[in-house]
Amino acid sequence: MTPELNDLFTLLRFPSISTESSHNADTRACAGWLVQKLTAMGLATTLHETPRHPIIVAKNKHVPGRRTVLLYGHYDVQPDAPVNEWRTPPFEPTLRDGRIWCRGATDNKGQLMAHVCGLEKTLREQGDLPVNLTCLFEGEEEIGSPNLKPFLAANRELLKCDVIAISDTGMVAPGVGTFTYGLRGIACAEIIARGPATDLHSGIWGGAVMNPITAIARIIASFHDASGHVQVPGFYDAVKPLADWEREAWKNLGDSEPETKAVTGVPELFGEAGFTDLERRWARPTAELNGIGGGWQQEGSKTVIAREAFAKFSFRLVPDQQPDEILKQVEKHLKAHTPPGIRLEVELGHTGMPYLMDPFSPFGQAAQRALEKTFGGKPALIREGGSIPIVQAFKDVLGVDTLLLGLALPDCQAHAPNENFPVENFEAGIRLNEYLLRELAQ
Amino acid sequence: MTPELNDLFTLLRFPSISTESSHNADTRACAGWLVQKLTAMGLATTLHETPRHPIIVAKNKHVPGRRTVLLYGHYDVQPDAPVNEWRTPPFEPTLRDGRIWCRGATDNKGQLMAHVCGLEKTLREQGDLPVNLTCLFEGEEEIGSPNLKPFLAANRELLKCDVIAISDTGMVAPGVGTFTYGLRGIACAEIIARGPATDLHSGIWGGAVMNPITAIARIIASFHDASGHVQVPGFYDAVKPLADWEREAWKNLGDSEPETKAVTGVPELFGEAGFTDLERRWARPTAELNGIGGGWQQEGSKTVIAREAFAKFSFRLVPDQQPDEILKQVEKHLKAHTPPGIRLEVELGHTGMPYLMDPFSPFGQAAQRALEKTFGGKPALIREGGSIPIVQAFKDVLGVDTLLLGLALPDCQAHAPNENFPVENFEAGIRLNEYLLRELAQ
Repeated sequence: MTPELNDLFTLLRFPSISTESSHNADTRACAGWLVQKLTAMGLATTLHETPRHPIIVAKNKHVPGRRTVLLYGHYDVQPDAPVNEWRTPPFEPTLRDGRIWCRGATDNKGQLMAHVCGLEKTLREQGDLPVNLTCLFEGEEEIGSPNLKPFLAANRELLKCDVIAISDTGMVAPGVGTFTYGLRGIACAEIIARGPATDLHSGIWGGAVMNPITAIARIIASFHDASGHVQVPGFYDAVKPLADWEREAWKNLGDSEPETKAVTGVPELFGEAGFTDLERRWARPTAELNGIGGGWQQEGSKTVIAREAFAKFSFRLVPDQQPDEILKQVEKHLKAHTPPGIRLEVELGHTGMPYLMDPFSPFGQAAQRALEKTFGGKPALIREGGSIPIVQAFKDVLGVDTLLLGLALPDCQAHAPNENFPVENFEAGIRLNEYLLRELAQ
Repeated sequence: MTPELNDLFTLLRFPSISTESSHNADTRACAGWLVQKLTAMGLATTLHETPRHPIIVAKNKHVPGRRTVLLYGHYDVQPDAPVNEWRTPPFEPTLRDGRIWCRGATDNKGQLMAHVCGLEKTLREQGDLPVNLTCLFEGEEEIGSPNLKPFLAANRELLKCDVIAISDTGMVAPGVGTFTYGLRGIACAEIIARGPATDLHSGIWGGAVMNPITAIARIIASFHDASGHVQVPGFYDAVKPLADWEREAWKNLGDSEPETKAVTGVPELFGEAGFTDLERRWARPTAELNGIGGGWQQEGSKTVIAREAFAKFSFRLVPDQQPDEILKQVEKHLKAHTPPGIRLEVELGHTGMPYLMDPFSPFGQAAQRALEKTFGGKPALIREGGSIPIVQAFKDVLGVDTLLLGLALPDCQAHAPNENFPVENFEAGIRLNEYLLRELAQ
């Protein structure tokens, strides 16, 4: 095993699940290891406390007259549930079929560590980097980066830069360099429908009260029409239509439907009429249920009317939808669709702005040259369905664009059991870091 | 504490949850204790194995020319979940405010034990009972009595009788003797909606696939219209209209809505237009969700599209609806409402026939006289919303009516946390057993 891979395995073993407070110590330990690593590489590294998980800043010696590049990544990961669906333990990195299998392998530890190893290589070989570099690594990306935005605002001088680079997005196919110039935003919420004061016998009381599970199902069903179009009034008002060149460029990527069907494993695809698979995932907003629960969930039957039921959901948003505006529309919609006999509790969750940059800007072109040198061949120009809300915050607070140079494959299983990252993508990321800094320096 | 109450507490301490296989040993131990108790009282008691939980039969010496009465009860109980909502541990009987608090206190151990103690008293004081008595106690009532019906068919001679008595129903109010001449039937089912092969990142894939939680919500929402009327085609076809005397008799019980609202704790009642609260609960069929689950149910958010979601539900049925016919209609309805991109698995559960007898038959009148002696005042004549499917099986296989002489109060919390049974109802049940056997002997 190479020293680089060994470092990545060490990083992966920390179960740094940011949403679960029982893992707070693990998440902190993960940050601590990164600080040690960056310091040992010769970077001036500082750990910044937040109300939850710390932020890491690391810099080489900044020299006037050079370009300043900020490299962002996150060391926190999604939960590992359902654990019994993993082929190997979620926090024990395993090499199999040329891939590293572990929670965080792709999202984002593998991609973050490729850049760190790239920096280490250049520093070792050249003694310095071709640019002024600032690493900014956080531990709250998977919970919506609640503390990074205020940190940016409070540290404008510390984080001042010309451009930002992130590897936390996808490649359209193995070996195809991919430049992402747009991301969907997000708005999360949770509802609890409360009815009876306690679980009721469904024989004795059934027919006289509204069932909270029925209520929550009716509310959820009101989100879409039968064709999957979101029914929240005003939801599509601010959606910017796709540009002709984008639809054309994406069409040239080939028919994605067979691969989407194969990777997701669904019996058939389902989405908005009039849009291709890529358009549905990259440039159209959604309302997705993420979780639901209520009543008897165990073996056999229990004939109760549950006193409450809950649902967790999130909206993926596209330019120029405003997450806060969308959540207001959603709250109004929820109120209008709450059946009689139910008290509905609405808890709004984290939000993130959608993002769109000009891929033909000078920095955009530099990034594409670096991708071409790394992978050979013209890179694909795409948007992505996922959300990195901090990207819009970088634009708003630091006033600069973010270059998204993803290394994730379509079947990387990010956020799912059996997350994985090809060793060759890890190695490509190390090369990419070198080329990118060189291109941006010019 | 009286010896009778002490016996009841011993019985209550067995966590005889029939639906949870982890409690099989507890359920068996509970049966074993009852066999010992009945044998010690001088009854010839036998334990009959079934594929799951054993059946107990106990008899006094049957003398030709006497009436034969079969007394039915069940020693199994509902699960204790959600355990943290119990004020005292679910399987540690506690005396508070004149009531016994424990899972099974009302349903059915308290009522069963009142009869057993009544028999014990008569046997002790008179040396014999006024009738030929057969006790038939099972451990599978809460899972639909799968093995009792074949047991009846295989043991017609052993169980031959003139009439059956059961205390497993409710009283309209404390101190008001209540004779139940009708019960709702039941038909249970469970569905699993499967979509993707694994949980998916809702950003990367959202918009391109049908979300299984959305699918299950849309299916559930299709069960009712907004006014709560069941939408399964054919569902109401066989429903027998209420007789005028019944509507009149129930109206004379007074307006039940305030009590229903108080006991259930709902912000407002909800049910079929054109029917009173009692009519909705006693004589109208329902479709009730009992449980639902899918995706991320823990703290915080996890932005996934779950690979599957499930729902458990049950239909309460009234004469002359046929459970098997209803389940056929439901399966057809489910198939018609399964969205594209979803494989729906339907698992049909247990069923039980609705029941209706003539309360003015000679045995019905004898039962009402016993209730009058026990409580004073004319007993209420009611139907009930719950199901005791075996009652119709008794009629079909043994050819006799069942007298339902309930001792449960409206706020007994059967099937819910903090189930309870008043000590005075336990004592009334002991008296009722004495009067009932005397009246039925004549």
